[in-house]
This record gives sequence, structure tokens and C-alpha cells, in this order.
Amino acid sequence: MFNKIAIVGVGLIGGSIGLAVKKQKIAKEVVGIGRRNISIKKALDKKSIDKGTLSIKDGLSGADLIIIATPVDKVMPKIKEIVKHAQKGAIIIDVNSTKEMVADYGDRAVKEREVFFVPTHPMAGSDQAGVTYAQKDLFEDSICIITPTRSTDKEALNVIRRFWEVIGADVVLMSPKLHDQAVSNISHLPHLIAYALCKSTTAKDMNLSGNGFKDTTRIAKSLPHMWADIFIQNKKSLLNSIAVFKKSLSKIESDIKKNKRPQLIKKLNDAKNKRDLIK
Amino acid sequence: MFNKIAIVGVGLIGGSIGLAVKKQKIAKEVVGIGRRNISIKKALDKKSIDKGTLSIKDGLSGADLIIIATPVDKVMPKIKEIVKHAQKGAIIIDVNSTKEMVADYGDRAVKEREVFFVPTHPMAGSDQAGVTYAQKDLFEDSICIITPTRSTDKEALNVIRRFWEVIGADVVLMSPKLHDQAVSNISHLPHLIAYALCKSTTAKDMNLSGNGFKDTTRIAKSLPHMWADIFIQNKKSLLNSIAVFKKSLSKIESDIKKNKRPQLIKKLNDAKNKRDLIK
Repeated sequence: MFNKIAIVGVGLIGGSIGLAVKKQKIAKEVVGIGRRNISIKKALDKKSIDKGTLSIKDGLSGADLIIIATPVDKVMPKIKEIVKHAQKGAIIIDVNSTKEMVADYGDRAVKEREVFFVPTHPMAGSDQAGVTYAQKDLFEDSICIITPTRSTDKEALNVIRRFWEVIGADVVLMSPKLHDQAVSNISHLPHLIAYALCKSTTAKDMNLSGNGFKDTTRIAKSLPHMWADIFIQNKKSLLNSIAVFKKSLSKIESDIKKNKRPQLIKKLNDAKNKRDLIK
Repeated sequence: MFNKIAIVGVGLIGGSIGLAVKKQKIAKEVVGIGRRNISIKKALDKKSIDKGTLSIKDGLSGADLIIIATPVDKVMPKIKEIVKHAQKGAIIIDVNSTKEMVADYGDRAVKEREVFFVPTHPMAGSDQAGVTYAQKDLFEDSICIITPTRSTDKEALNVIRRFWEVIGADVVLMSPKLHDQAVSNISHLPHLIAYALCKSTTAKDMNLSGNGFKDTTRIAKSLPHMWADIFIQNKKSLLNSIAVFKKSLSKIESDIKKNKRPQLIKKLNDAKNKRDLIK
């Protein structure tokens, strides 16, 4: 139970956290901090926050949990600003899609301060952006990865673990480094491939698209600037994922080229068997 | 209105055609021709056919429309066998995913015979195989591509066009060659990419998959031997699609490598704009 939860950046994720927190009644007050009056108004209309402000200082006053849900390129500057204004004992979390850089930055920012930083990554989202699309059950049956470092406070970690569980997520703990490679494989690479697939398809061919093409490329409807920043921020892992993917693609291509039917069936079968592990 | 429709191969597509034909009441009788008693029994249980037989000769007797819905590697041998037993005036269609080879084969098979061949490709399906998953509305709001050649009988073409429209499909006409390149881009390549993506992902990472990964790879649950045959049959077009895709992928990769944020955003934006053309 929190006294006051401050959500910095009330978009799809921030707004959905607000709705989930209010549904579970785990905070006396939820305050949204935005950069523009219009975003605050939309979040209030959506009832994802109780109050809204443009002032970090006012918004953080009395907050025991601070959630940074700003765009990728704003997370680190925000951590710095928040640490300055956060009350003693407050726990700060982020929801950024890459973790190694942010976790390291957060550790250094809270060092010798009486506030805590816990890096988290809820694996939930939508190709729709903005608080208008926020959902109170966005995190139900989703996975939230928490990536503690050696500096992460154990008690703060437990509080945050419980926080994500209460709003519906299954929590997975792993190191920031392993996280970045895993999400690169399972999330960033599929996004990049969906974009590349749309890029290489003509608008004319699009007219013939069935459910297969639509599903395979749905995530290419996601926000370009957000994903450009994620790709660049997770460059190291992502370039590695791309290399592995290209190798798989070339092996399948080579079987097709050489009419190696049994070998091709075996490769497709291995892929299907892995895919059949999930629903 | 047909007197008797014979469906050769009563799987997902053949069974769904049977259900749709019975729903629209456009045939006095629907007969399924299978290779095994068990498939016939399943199709009868599903009510997708009125009668079933293992004999091509018996099944085709009196049929004025014959639909070949067998696996990819059996289509051409079936055309040959069917032409031998089809009654005078019968129209034969196939539903194969590649058309250049089949259209040419069909033309030659019906030459100087009093039966007609019309190559068709309903762009509908499921990652589930077998008549058990047949649906009476599988073709509603789907696209069916018909690929007439210079030898295709105009009257037979009109009958078949009307046939697909009545069971719910939007009909598109194009040459077999253009068809093969277009479906390679819009269907075969996405399937190949979904398989390659699963192949290059570890079972451990799969545990972290969200909706993005699931949607992008759903079609990798499709039948490996069927898709291996489609890939090999449409090799010429598919290798071309792969080359174009690889180029798109490499351009995006290069922007990431070189931190070219504006160029990267532009490319993702172009891809998103194309994807936004369809729902």
C-alpha cells in the first residue's frame, strides 16, 4: 500500500499503470506528471490519475513510489531530475525497454542518496500510443522483468516485485545484460523484422494481404521514433540478434535453392516445435 | 448452381469449401474423395460433404465441378488422373498456392479434351490443418486470386469467378506469373520469416514472449511439409522476395549501427505508413 504514487509520463504505459493501481486500490493518491496540459487533461478524463501537474517538484512531494514512464530518450534525464526532488525513502522505478544503460545510470544517480532505484520492464504494450488507449488490465497475464544490480536495495526490490504482481504481471528477475539480449531476441528483433517486411512490400501487394501478413507485420504499426530509440539504445544486443536471424534465414534459403526438401522440412519443423511451446 | 461438386482432398480448404457450398445451397450434392477412410469419416462427421468415396472414378461420375484441394505435391498428378475420369463439360479447379507451374500443367492436361481447367488460389487458411478445423465462413471477406491463361475457357472462367464470389471471396484476376511473385511477397516470405525467427530464438527466450512475438510468428505453427513444398515450388519468386527483404533489413541495420536516428525513423515511418494502408 502506497501513500502517493507519482507517474512521470502518462502515456499508454503510465496511464495503464494508473488505471491498474486504482483498480487494485493500492495507493491513496495517484498523481500524473506531464510535459503538456493536454496530456494531463486526457489522463484525467481517462481517470488514470487523480491529479495532474506539470511540475516535477509538486508532483513528487510526498510520493513514496515514483514511476518513470517517459519515452526512451527521456528516461535518464528524468532520473537525474527526480532524484533531486524525491522524498527520503522513495522508490523510483522505470519501465524502459532496455536495461543495462538505465540500471547503471540509476545506480549512480541514487548513490549516497536516501532514495532507491529499481529497474523494471513490463513486457506489455500496444501498437496504439497515448493514454487514450490505456487499459486497466494491460499487465494481467503479462510478464514484467525486473533487473536488479548488485547495488539494488533488497527491500525496495521486494516492494516493487509485489507491486507488479498485484497489478497482474508475472515477475521474472534477470541481470540487465541478460535482459537486453533476451528482449532483443524476443521483442526488438521481431519489431525490426516487421518493419523491414513492410518496407520491402509494395503497397500494391498489400492489397492481397491475408491474416498471415497482417499478424506478422502488426507491430510495424508501432511508433517509429520510439522504436528507433529502442533499437539504437539496445544496439549491441540487437546487432547480435540480427546476425543470428540472418544465419537462420540463409540456411533455410539455401535448402530452398538446392531443393533439399527433407532438410528444409526438418528446419521448419524445429521452428514450429519451438513456436508450439507458447500459445 | 451445380448438379454435383466433387472435392478431391477434404482437408481444411476442401472441407471449408464443402461447408460454404452447402451453406449457400449451390450444389445438389457434394462428394468428397479422399485417400483414407478416416479422412472421409471426419469430413462426413463435420457435414462438409454429403457422401465420401476413395474412388476417383465413382466420385467424379456426374460431377460438373471438380475441386482439387490436395497437398501441394499431389496437385499435378491429380489433374492428370481427374481429366481421365471427368465427364464432358466438367470444370476442374485447383486451390494451389503457386500457379505458374500448375496453370501450365492444367492447360496441357485439358487440351483437346472436353473438360475445362481454371487455376484459382483462395487466400484463406489457418495454422490448423485438417477438416476438423474447416469453417463455413473461411472465405468470407477473403481474396481469391484466379489466374487465367490464354488457353482458359472464358465461360468456365466466369462460372468459377461467380462460384468464389458466392461463397464470400473477393475475386482478383492476374497472370500466373504475377500471382506467384505477389503471393511470394505477401504470403510465402512472411511464412519463411516467421519460421526463421522461431529457428533463431531459444526456447528459454520464448518464455518471455509477448503478443508482439506471438503475432509475428503465429504462422510458423503451419504445416512444415506443406510450406516446404510451397517454398520449393515457388522458388524463383521466393528467392527474389528474400533478396529484397534482406536489402531492407540491411539498410535498417546499417542505420542502427551508425546511430543514424533521423534516417532510421524515416525508414520505420515509411514501413508503418505502408502497414497502415491495411487494417
